[in-house]
Amino acid sequence: MPPVITLLTDFGTRDSYVGEVRAVLASQANPALLVDITHEVPPGDIRAAQYIFSRVWHRFPRGTVHLVVVDPGVGTARRALAAEAAGQFFVAPDNGLLSSLPADARFVALPVPAGAAPTFHARDLFAPAAAQLANGTAPTHLGHTITDPVRAPLPEPRSDGAALIGEVIYVDRFGTLVTNIPGGRAAPGVPLTVGGIEVGLLRRTFGDVEPGQLVAFVGSGGTVEVAVRDGSAARMLGVGVGAQVRV
Amino acid sequence: MPPVITLLTDFGTRDSYVGEVRAVLASQANPALLVDITHEVPPGDIRAAQYIFSRVWHRFPRGTVHLVVVDPGVGTARRALAAEAAGQFFVAPDNGLLSSLPADARFVALPVPAGAAPTFHARDLFAPAAAQLANGTAPTHLGHTITDPVRAPLPEPRSDGAALIGEVIYVDRFGTLVTNIPGGRAAPGVPLTVGGIEVGLLRRTFGDVEPGQLVAFVGSGGTVEVAVRDGSAARMLGVGVGAQVRV
Amino acid sequence: MPPVITLLTDFGTRDSYVGEVRAVLASQANPALLVDITHEVPPGDIRAAQYIFSRVWHRFPRGTVHLVVVDPGVGTARRALAAEAAGQFFVAPDNGLLSSLPADARFVALPVPAGAAPTFHARDLFAPAAAQLANGTAPTHLGHTITDPVRAPLPEPRSDGAALIGEVIYVDRFGTLVTNIPGGRAAPGVPLTVGGIEVGLLRRTFGDVEPGQLVAFVGSGGTVEVAVRDGSAARMLGVGVGAQVRV
Repeated sequence: MPPVITLLTDFGTRDSYVGEVRAVLASQANPALLVDITHEVPPGDIRAAQYIFSRVWHRFPRGTVHLVVVDPGVGTARRALAAEAAGQFFVAPDNGLLSSLPADARFVALPVPAGAAPTFHARDLFAPAAAQLANGTAPTHLGHTITDPVRAPLPEPRSDGAALIGEVIYVDRFGTLVTNIPGGRAAPGVPLTVGGIEVGLLRRTFGDVEPGQLVAFVGSGGTVEVAVRDGSAARMLGVGVGAQVRV
Repeated sequence: MPPVITLLTDFGTRDSYVGEVRAVLASQANPALLVDITHEVPPGDIRAAQYIFSRVWHRFPRGTVHLVVVDPGVGTARRALAAEAAGQFFVAPDNGLLSSLPADARFVALPVPAGAAPTFHARDLFAPAAAQLANGTAPTHLGHTITDPVRAPLPEPRSDGAALIGEVIYVDRFGTLVTNIPGGRAAPGVPLTVGGIEVGLLRRTFGDVEPGQLVAFVGSGGTVEVAVRDGSAARMLGVGVGAQVRV
Repeated sequence: MPPVITLLTDFGTRDSYVGEVRAVLASQANPALLVDITHEVPPGDIRAAQYIFSRVWHRFPRGTVHLVVVDPGVGTARRALAAEAAGQFFVAPDNGLLSSLPADARFVALPVPAGAAPTFHARDLFAPAAAQLANGTAPTHLGHTITDPVRAPLPEPRSDGAALIGEVIYVDRFGTLVTNIPGGRAAPGVPLTVGGIEVGLLRRTFGDVEPGQLVAFVGSGGTVEVAVRDGSAARMLGVGVGAQVRV
């Protein structure tokens, strides 16, 4: 059965770039579905891409091939990777994008094909490799095994005895602040601060407060989030990625 | 034959949300195509989503499953629906999004799965239900029949004897004002006003006027529209959804 | 085997328009994939659409059907085309969008179906024609052969003896200036000017300069491009499409 191929890039959707990648995938493989995760990662923002990818990849079926390209170092000496984990396959530059793969993931370094455009490895290197993986070629047939891929996990919260101290790791398009505080660590009734500002007690969902009010809740990614109902917490609090969170 | 599954949301395309929904659909069903209607509904704008959906759903083939989620009440007591009409299937929150379904549509209320994130029923409730519908499960196997879904049809024009009085029901990205005046009620040569401003006589298409000029015509949705060739009628006239239209 | 159908328009993705076109294609054909090239062409910008399309179409497999609609003259006397070239199929208004097809491409003029909305030929004329092509109908069964389609190729550079003089033909979303100077004509070490401004010597890729610096290189489309690493050359140089380039 033909597999799903997914795409996650910072190319945007107004130029020819995503179309060229899709064309290579449609020409060189026979995917059941071509699924966009997003192409709207802020240009070069590896951390944002990492967070998005960590939420999504494990929900796809076995055999899925993921093309993940946010690649400010394209054409330089940074390595190009293919990987296998949990029965799924991955291609990405070696810059930490795949840090959410489990410890037993296996990696190979891919050669640069002759004639590949130095500024467009997504089309000329990663898409052909993804197509071969989709066609059943094992990663080890595409490159040489490596054991030291760049692993740059998202920051973890730490305890200072009195409180758990984490940070904002992502801001979504609604201005909701996603923190790295695990949902299980933020009991209802315990006060939460973001960037030094008290944001009140944990609730269940947006609808538990009035429009325009701040609300903290365990978000759909499993960590504490801070939002404004029908508004933007990022704008109201004036904070963004990296802001300290205490609980 | 596997069915088409469509998606219509207000999630935008830059975060992980649409990707997570697509992952659930690709994992739990085997759709022939995953078709986006749009993810750019203004956040929480049920009326805009309703209008868009009313234009599109009936054009899909029998067996299509539509996931329609604009859900400001997610996680509250509002019901979650599955529906069947005209040989097609639908999942949506019970807030009027499906008001364009015919009178003989059948509805069930869906239970909230254990562990569903209160802020992400699209992923944890609606997508699994859509996948089951795509796999051939009847709606009545997914929930209990209800006969009182929220029906909030778009406003209809009324006559005051002298004129037909309607309103602007949608503004598209070009700034074109879509009214609820049926095309058959606006004869060429009869004057039309929007927000009290005379917009001239009905024409066939944009190209019938010079660039920068106002033009009224029967739009592709079957009602009168007011546009500016190569410009924005919303900006030129300073009006939006709800503005009165007289013909 | 069912073919791929691609879509390239200026409709944007927030209204119902692309969804309606996809619905017609999904209802009247059985495509293996529906692939978006882009829907974010600036409204009415035939030149931008032409450039994007010229980069993409030839990368798709034989049998692919391309729907290309940027159509400021929709509903006027401009002709509607279907075409065949290199084993692929095309539908588009006759306004130069298909100028990148080879000289031996064959064209037919399509009739306007009864009842087609004068402002939405993409849905009512081009999508049904694309579906028929996808179903195996020959173009010559859909309309009458013509030999004079509008051919408006993108501008070519010329030599003034001392230098090769070209122009900026596209600006991408990163603000990178794409010129029409063939990569083979811009040797490393030869100075390049854009809009009269010296931009330095040709490099391989972004990563060869520091963030914020101008860099010229042979781009992935095969012509010289001028970019700013982690920035916008269009903004830094204050130039856009049509700016003169000398090498």
